[in-house]
Amino acid sequence: MNREQLIQLIKKKQSFLCVGLDSDLDKIPSHLKNTDDPVFEFNREIIDATMQYAVAYKPNLAFYESRGMKGMLSLHRTMEYLSKFSDQCFTIADAKRGDIGNTSTQYALAFFDQQSSGLNFDAVTVAPYMGEDSVSPFLKFENKWVILLALTSNKGANNFQLIESETGQPLFENVLKTSQEWGNPSNLMYVVGATRAEMLGRVREIAPDHFLLVPGVGAQGGSLKEVAEFGLNQDCGLLVNASRSIIFASNGEDFAEKAAEEAQNMQKEMSEILSGKGIA
Amino acid sequence: MNREQLIQLIKKKQSFLCVGLDSDLDKIPSHLKNTDDPVFEFNREIIDATMQYAVAYKPNLAFYESRGMKGMLSLHRTMEYLSKFSDQCFTIADAKRGDIGNTSTQYALAFFDQQSSGLNFDAVTVAPYMGEDSVSPFLKFENKWVILLALTSNKGANNFQLIESETGQPLFENVLKTSQEWGNPSNLMYVVGATRAEMLGRVREIAPDHFLLVPGVGAQGGSLKEVAEFGLNQDCGLLVNASRSIIFASNGEDFAEKAAEEAQNMQKEMSEILSGKGIA
Repeated sequence: MNREQLIQLIKKKQSFLCVGLDSDLDKIPSHLKNTDDPVFEFNREIIDATMQYAVAYKPNLAFYESRGMKGMLSLHRTMEYLSKFSDQCFTIADAKRGDIGNTSTQYALAFFDQQSSGLNFDAVTVAPYMGEDSVSPFLKFENKWVILLALTSNKGANNFQLIESETGQPLFENVLKTSQEWGNPSNLMYVVGATRAEMLGRVREIAPDHFLLVPGVGAQGGSLKEVAEFGLNQDCGLLVNASRSIIFASNGEDFAEKAAEEAQNMQKEMSEILSGKGIA
Repeated sequence: MNREQLIQLIKKKQSFLCVGLDSDLDKIPSHLKNTDDPVFEFNREIIDATMQYAVAYKPNLAFYESRGMKGMLSLHRTMEYLSKFSDQCFTIADAKRGDIGNTSTQYALAFFDQQSSGLNFDAVTVAPYMGEDSVSPFLKFENKWVILLALTSNKGANNFQLIESETGQPLFENVLKTSQEWGNPSNLMYVVGATRAEMLGRVREIAPDHFLLVPGVGAQGGSLKEVAEFGLNQDCGLLVNASRSIIFASNGEDFAEKAAEEAQNMQKEMSEILSGKGIA
């Protein structure tokens, strides 16, 4: 999916909601556990219930890899199901990959090349530590996206991301600036945590046009209003992710219904925000 | 495998060689391509041919993930085969993972917990960008290891790893110092590229006791002699990885034989180095 299609999707659905499929087998409703593939059944119902409110889905690879071959099968089935909605949603492999050039090329095939791996995500999250040649192989795929970690939502972000260089520039700002030499607003987004909404303003100064993937709203405590205040640009420019607060809104038989309610609540708030800025 | 067992293994085999299983389907000998699982057959023959010369094997996850479910099956078969040699070699998942705490726990299950995922590696490579809570979940598993990226062998290492803070400390040194508060020489190693052998001396000052995983010898151009000169400590403290220079030494039917020759050459040089330092 290209940038223009993503922007049109946001305008059409009046939403910039991304649903995180952190589908922990231990947390999904017990009535699904007798099915052949409980995690896929869970994802399928979540997708059906939230598709009208969400513009993106983000499987968190760790929750599939931890279940070995069975988990990978759940992921492949989920992506096959999502492919039926390929013009209705953007898909993100939350995988935090990144390695030397020839290895990053293989990771790009893993997430972007259906013929090679069976998976066909629109985007993959990438860690910046290894620099340009670890990121650029992903950028060579047409209409595919790198979502580079800049400022994450966790406590450990303080360890290195905020360290200031001799010139007073925190590491995450250096990542934002340097990486703009590798990609552009049509193939590169950034992860910026909602738990640091006040710093979104600074991110917007450095990267005015890039989309930002914002985790940390919901279970991690970030505020949608603040994120929009500091992060919105003229094209919206935001994908706000919620995982646990939507997919585990209920652990009963009504889980999909409750997930839809949560997603709808967020979509309503997003719709008001978008209208307020004239993005329609 | 614990630290003492690893050290004993190095002394017994008089080797600190790690064989990187970057088993690219496009590069393996054509006569294997008619088998049911060419990559597994290739790995099996490489393992048999090099086991007496190597103390560690390091599958590079990207080369398996890029082939989707088939690739993951090759990886599982390879690890099942390696489990027969569990007291003869150390196993490393070269995966460069790292995410918020609950997600890193899932990645730890993926690589360390046989019951959960079917895989049972001794160690996994982890990227430091997200800080403490992205690394510490891996450190909670007994006799398992984190191998944290410090100074990598690629050109992109210059982008961020060498940036100096206000106090003149490059980022990779900060990673080395800060992470020693999270783990210890019995559960934490560091990746330090052989292409920067002169900087190994500096790493050794900061982390005198930790094992270092050193990629970049062989195809990437690093020198074993220099690595040993700057990196060796009283317990050896090194695992030197070679991938392409061993596993693709020949692309004919003699590939395993040629791989054994390359591995033996490196083991001989390592044996001389270890003897010279009285590590036996």
